[in-house]
Order: sequence, then structure tokens, then C-alpha cells
Amino acid sequence: MTMPAHATKLAIDRIRFERTLRELAEIGADPRGGLSRLGLSQAENEARAYLSEASRAAGLYPQVDPAGNLLVRRPSADPQRPALLIGSHLDTVVQGGWLDGAYGVVAALEVLAVLSENEIECPREPVAVGFANEEGALVQYPFWGSRALTGTLADGGKACDRTGQPVERYLRAFGSDLNRLAETAWAPGSISGYLELHIEQGTVLERRRIPIGVVEAIVGRAIFEISVLGTAGHAGTTAMCDRQDALAAAACLVLKVESIAAELGLCRTATVGYLDVMPNTTNTIPGTVRLTAEIRDTDGERLRTAETVLRSMAASVAGSRDLSVTVRKAHQSDPVATDPSLRAAVENAALSLGLACLAMPSGAGHDAQIVAMAAPVGMIFVPSKDGMSHVPAEDTEADALIAGANVLLHSVLALQDEPGTFQHGCAQSASKANDRRQQSGYQLTPP
Amino acid sequence: MTMPAHATKLAIDRIRFERTLRELAEIGADPRGGLSRLGLSQAENEARAYLSEASRAAGLYPQVDPAGNLLVRRPSADPQRPALLIGSHLDTVVQGGWLDGAYGVVAALEVLAVLSENEIECPREPVAVGFANEEGALVQYPFWGSRALTGTLADGGKACDRTGQPVERYLRAFGSDLNRLAETAWAPGSISGYLELHIEQGTVLERRRIPIGVVEAIVGRAIFEISVLGTAGHAGTTAMCDRQDALAAAACLVLKVESIAAELGLCRTATVGYLDVMPNTTNTIPGTVRLTAEIRDTDGERLRTAETVLRSMAASVAGSRDLSVTVRKAHQSDPVATDPSLRAAVENAALSLGLACLAMPSGAGHDAQIVAMAAPVGMIFVPSKDGMSHVPAEDTEADALIAGANVLLHSVLALQDEPGTFQHGCAQSASKANDRRQQSGYQLTPP
Repeated sequence: MTMPAHATKLAIDRIRFERTLRELAEIGADPRGGLSRLGLSQAENEARAYLSEASRAAGLYPQVDPAGNLLVRRPSADPQRPALLIGSHLDTVVQGGWLDGAYGVVAALEVLAVLSENEIECPREPVAVGFANEEGALVQYPFWGSRALTGTLADGGKACDRTGQPVERYLRAFGSDLNRLAETAWAPGSISGYLELHIEQGTVLERRRIPIGVVEAIVGRAIFEISVLGTAGHAGTTAMCDRQDALAAAACLVLKVESIAAELGLCRTATVGYLDVMPNTTNTIPGTVRLTAEIRDTDGERLRTAETVLRSMAASVAGSRDLSVTVRKAHQSDPVATDPSLRAAVENAALSLGLACLAMPSGAGHDAQIVAMAAPVGMIFVPSKDGMSHVPAEDTEADALIAGANVLLHSVLALQDEPGTFQHGCAQSASKANDRRQQSGYQLTPP
Repeated sequence: MTMPAHATKLAIDRIRFERTLRELAEIGADPRGGLSRLGLSQAENEARAYLSEASRAAGLYPQVDPAGNLLVRRPSADPQRPALLIGSHLDTVVQGGWLDGAYGVVAALEVLAVLSENEIECPREPVAVGFANEEGALVQYPFWGSRALTGTLADGGKACDRTGQPVERYLRAFGSDLNRLAETAWAPGSISGYLELHIEQGTVLERRRIPIGVVEAIVGRAIFEISVLGTAGHAGTTAMCDRQDALAAAACLVLKVESIAAELGLCRTATVGYLDVMPNTTNTIPGTVRLTAEIRDTDGERLRTAETVLRSMAASVAGSRDLSVTVRKAHQSDPVATDPSLRAAVENAALSLGLACLAMPSGAGHDAQIVAMAAPVGMIFVPSKDGMSHVPAEDTEADALIAGANVLLHSVLALQDEPGTFQHGCAQSASKANDRRQQSGYQLTPP
């Protein structure tokens, strides 16, 4: 089909969009700064209630599924039509920012409202989604909502918070329960595609002064838990040549891990974010150090090479310092490519609006990588101020937020012109990735 | 004077000595293993009470001074004679061993009992001392007792435990109070010397199979608090070239500090024992790391050189990684040499008993370094099993403990033949060291 001529002039309602985004940012505001609207918490429930009310006010039809996902449809929606999902997640990390997740959800609602108000006929029925608990900061099961919707929520009923409170307690707070969880999954083929608008959370777009990023792939990643077992001893009485200093060995590893990405270029990023020393007193040689190493890349083969090199480095440090270094893979997710048709729709939408765009990877994880197991996905990025995210200072300029929302609107319009199915080139590999994730306890690792 | 002939045959009462040491090890026994007989705690009070009773049973005269030091004299002691102090400390660290401190105190009591029973006349009146709170594990003022006795307890009344409870509360538990603290200090010249018998806490004697160590000097030491301030960021979205990774910079420092002693040989030991990462999560680039660096040597000039190199290394890391590294000296103590006459007395005593001995430094701090501010000091070491100390497994073979106690006995006897004053070659430098310690808040740093 072809869009009516007036469709090319459509734009989101800036005032309504900004008001909704601002009001949503008050829900879960943390007195220490930023937002702590944790997944499945009472604050996330309030966000769902607020956005449901805002949807109704815009003439839309909101529902909350048994996993806590907010789904919003146009009154005219034909349930037989395959859905074009648009959205992001409702929750934040502890003291997170106001845009991560929220921006994509509010923009999706606004897009739906504009399409509804203008009575645009859509063969791919746009459905806005606000996924529950993407971060896993409270109930420790990241991507909870997108996993439930795609039927990949393994052992969801066993999820709990850090104090051991089961997820069921949280489900009951919004009228759901464990028995209904399975009803969340959509039937195979019912999703024709998923488009997620999100802040970049990095500095690529800001530095290049480009307003729109078209995500080519979401990085895969592996996390390793490394234990260095040396011998604790008195820092004054143990000669240097007699030491098995676990911290000195760990320091070698920290630098070697960094070199995997920074010097050897074997993957995009390699980071030691966590390191714990025991007994950790000034005058005792450290006996044990535990650390994590995380590697990310958009190419699965490169990730495997980086892992091999990391393991060989660990063995080399253990050998040269005569102590024990064990490396355990705690998590693995494969890279997820976005769909070429969805990428093209985003590029065309940006061009039609006179906005420059850049093809780029996503270094962070997103619900899109989960939905990719069931449908072709695409992602749109807007610049992050100073690249900051997951912190109270997270921000994006108002015009850039509006530009991104309009690109989402026109991408949805452009996709109505697409042939019956997207290319969905990555579905097979994504499915394999899913198997691996479930085996390795993927749900325990935040994005 | 010359010792009576039978003095050369004197030996400690092995059964009484071992029983006392064993029974003392029950006081403060920690259910988790080892001893937690913390300085000025109720357990230390019980140790004083137990040893007072044991002293009385051996015909000796025990007293507790206002700082909590146990002082034991022979009934025949002439208060006008300068005292030859012998002993060590009563307290342990948390889950420490049964010999650190306790061995030297019990051996001193046994020596006194033997001298008393055999009516040996001593121009240098031997006085046994069990110093209170050498470790500073509860009331955070290490060397509390020896500082009080030597009149160098600066701001003692301000000491408190980790919860802020003032030291006065602990003093009252054994009938003392802050007003009486000043009475603890001995008059100048009243101590003719101090001999401390202690486990080595290292592996030097054990490896060389030598039963007796004659301490030449106690190492001086400097402790630096180092802050590395980088920029926290998302481990997936921050490019390697954009990072100011505080942990990677800290890892460079850990290895450079190690190299100061291990490769450059600028001092005996150089250790990073403490390192704390913020925010310390797998998927966040560390923004801040705090660590300590500790250097020790028996030569003050070498310590100063090592410090200069350490500061230069910190500046180099800050420059090359474009982040901030600040180095603050938190503690400094100068090396303390033992007195040649006391060393000779110990060597002669060992030789007379057919025991090999080795001149060696002490890598750990001891009450002797404090008493050195007021009098010439000497130290006798016995081997430590596997070099372990400050842990429940701390141990020394029974015969080695007996040999050390007999060397203490015969050192005391040998010193009765010495001319009127010891050479006391280090008193001047020790006094300067004391000034520096007080300026730099020495009391807050455990030995």
C-alpha cells in the first residue's frame, strides 16, 4: 500500500510528548538524585497506571499483561493483523536517569496517538509496549518483560529480589500471579517487527554531531569470574621473593584484560569493573582476589578469540607468579544483528526529515536483543549528553528527543509500505544465542 | 660483679612455662578459631588477672599500671636500682595466634621466677612487663602500653574503638581512669634496658634451621594512601580510547609499588595490602580506586629514596592515563637499631647454650621500638612455623620455645656483668623518630 499524502507531513505533538515524559520522570524520583523506578516495584506499577491513563486520554486502549508489560493499541486495531511493536522499558536502575527506557515508551505512545488521531491505516498494526523490569535491579531477572512476551522466560517463577522475596509477591501487587505468566507469550508469527527508540548511552553521536544512530547490531558479551588464590602474609616479615601476592597477580590480569581490546583490538570493549581483595588490610599481603572480566563485540567469532586469549593470559599469570588463577564463564550472549529492512526504514525516515544518521553498534544490551528471538528488530539512537547513562545526570537535548520521536513515527509509516515479511536475517542465530543464554544463567546479568 | 657459678646452670621450668602459656591461650579463645584477646578488652583484663595470679603463685609481686600494663617484680626488688625490663604484649589481633606477645610475657615471668627462686642478685633489677594493647585491634591506638610507660602517649585520652566508645570506658573496667594515665610514665633513666623475646613471624630462621635470631634493627615504615580518580562509565558504550579507568591505573600502581622492592631493591618490602574499587560492578568502568602502599626498610635514607620513586611513579601513571592520582603519607616511623651491648648479651647467651644464632632485622613492629625512645633495647626471635602469624595456625615447636626462653634467661644473667650503662647508640635517632610519629598520627597504624 501507499501512505496518504498527508502522512508525510505528520509530526508528534511536542507539548504532549514533553509533558508526558516530564510527568513520568516524577514517578520513582529518588530523594538522593535521579530515579529509582525499579522493575516490578510499586513505582513501576505507578508508571504503568500513569501511562495507561495518558493513553486513554489520547484515545488509545491500554492493557497490562501478566508479566507487567504495558501494551497500548489503537481503538481501531485489528487483532488479526501482525503487530509492529514499538517501545522500550518502564524501569530504571537505582538512581538512574529519566530517559533510559522511558524515552522510547513515551515516544511510542505518542506515535500511536498521532497515527490514531490521523486515522492512518496500517497493515502492520503498531502496538506500543512498555516492557517491565529490563534492568533487573530489584527482581533479579533482567529482560523480564521482553522474555515473557517472547516466551523465553525460563524459570521465571524462581526469580526473587536480593532479600529472597519471590517474584510472585511483586506480580500480585498489580493483580497478576505465577499461573498467568505463561499467558504473556505471544503466538509465533504474531509480531512482524520491533522498533526500539533509545538514548545512545555513549558519546559517538554527540561527538560527531549526528542526531540519529541506526543500530546495526547489539553487541554480544561474555562475563568471566576470575579467582586469584595466593597466600596471605605479614607485609613486613614476608620477603618479596617468598610472596604469592594475589593482588599483584590480579593487577597483571586487569592490565592484560584491558589490552585485549585497547591494544590487541580483539574485541570492542574489555573491562574489569569488579575487584575484591581479601583480607584487604594495609599490612597484610592479599591472599585472595576475586574479579570479573567482561568482553563485548558485535562479532561472535571475535568474542571467542578474545576469550581464548583471556584464558591464556590468566594461565600465564598463574604460571609466572606460582599461584592459582581460575576463570569461570558466568554469562554469554551472542551478538544480535538488526534487520536490514527495519534499518532501511529508519534511514529513509531520517533522510525524509532532513536528519543525518549514522550506522553504529549498540554497546549496551536492550529488549530488542530478546525480541530478536521472535521477530526482526531495529533500533534508533539519539545522542546522550556526555555519553552519561544510568546516572542522575543522564540527559539529551529537547530538540534531539523530538527528532528521534519523529524518526520513529516516520519509520513506522515507512514500514507500512514494506512487502509482507521482513528479511529477518538474524532469527536463526538469535535462536541459538537464546539456548546458550538459558544454559548459562543469562537472566542474572544486567544489560 | 660476677655471677655465682650455679647461675650458668640455670634453666627455666619447662612444665610450669608450658602450662602457663597453654592456660593463657584459653583466655580470649575465638570460637571461629585462634584468639581474639583484643587490647584493653575484658579478655585482656582476664589475661592480666590470670598472669597476676600465676606470678603470685611463683612468689613474685604483680601490679597493673594505669594504662593496663602488667608489671611483675621479685619480692627482693630494690626500687632504686635501674630496671632491666623484659617482656612483650598481652593482646592479640582478631583471630590471631597464641604466641605473638604472649610468648615473650610468659617467658619473662618464668625468667623472673627462676631468678627469684635461685636468689640471684641483680644490679639491673629484672622487671617483667606485659604491655597492654600493642596491636590496637579494638581501641585503635597501637603500642598503647609501651607509649604510656615511656611517656609518649600523645592524646591517649582521645583514643576510641571503631564504634566511637572512648578508651576511658575500657580503663574503668580494670579500675583505672584518664586522670591516672600520666602516672604510667616511668622517670627518665629508670629503665636501663629492654629485652623482648618474640616469634619471628617470618620464615628466615625456619628456612635456615637456626633457633635464635638476634634482631639488629626494627624496620621503619611509611604508609601512603593513594586515591585514583578517573571517570565511571558504561562498560559497553564507552570506547576504550575514551576511558579514564581508575582500576586499570591502580593496577599499574600495584605493580610499580611491588617493583620498588622486588625489582629495584630500593627497600626491603613494598606492599599494596588494601584496594577498594567504586562503584565495583561488572558492567561499569571503575571511577575511583583507593589503595594503600606500604614500604619498610631498616635504613631511613633508603626509605626516603623509595618514597621519592613511589611518588614519581604515581605522577607518571596519572600523566599517561590522563586521570588524577593523589598520594598522601598517612604514617611514618623511622628504623630503630637495637643496642650493641644487648645484642652481644643475647649472642653470648645463645652460644653458652650451644644454640646457633643469626643477626637479622625485624620486619614487623614491636613494643621494643617504642621503649627505644627511653632506653637501649634488644630483641630475641625464635622460628615461626611456616612464617605464619596473626592467624590461628601461628605456632613454634615446643623445644624452640624453651630454647628462646632460656636464651632470655641467660641474656638477663649476662647483662648483670655489663658496665654501668649500655651504649644506647640509637637513643638520639629514636627520639627524632618519635617526634615524627606523633606529627603523623602514628598511633593509628597497627604494627
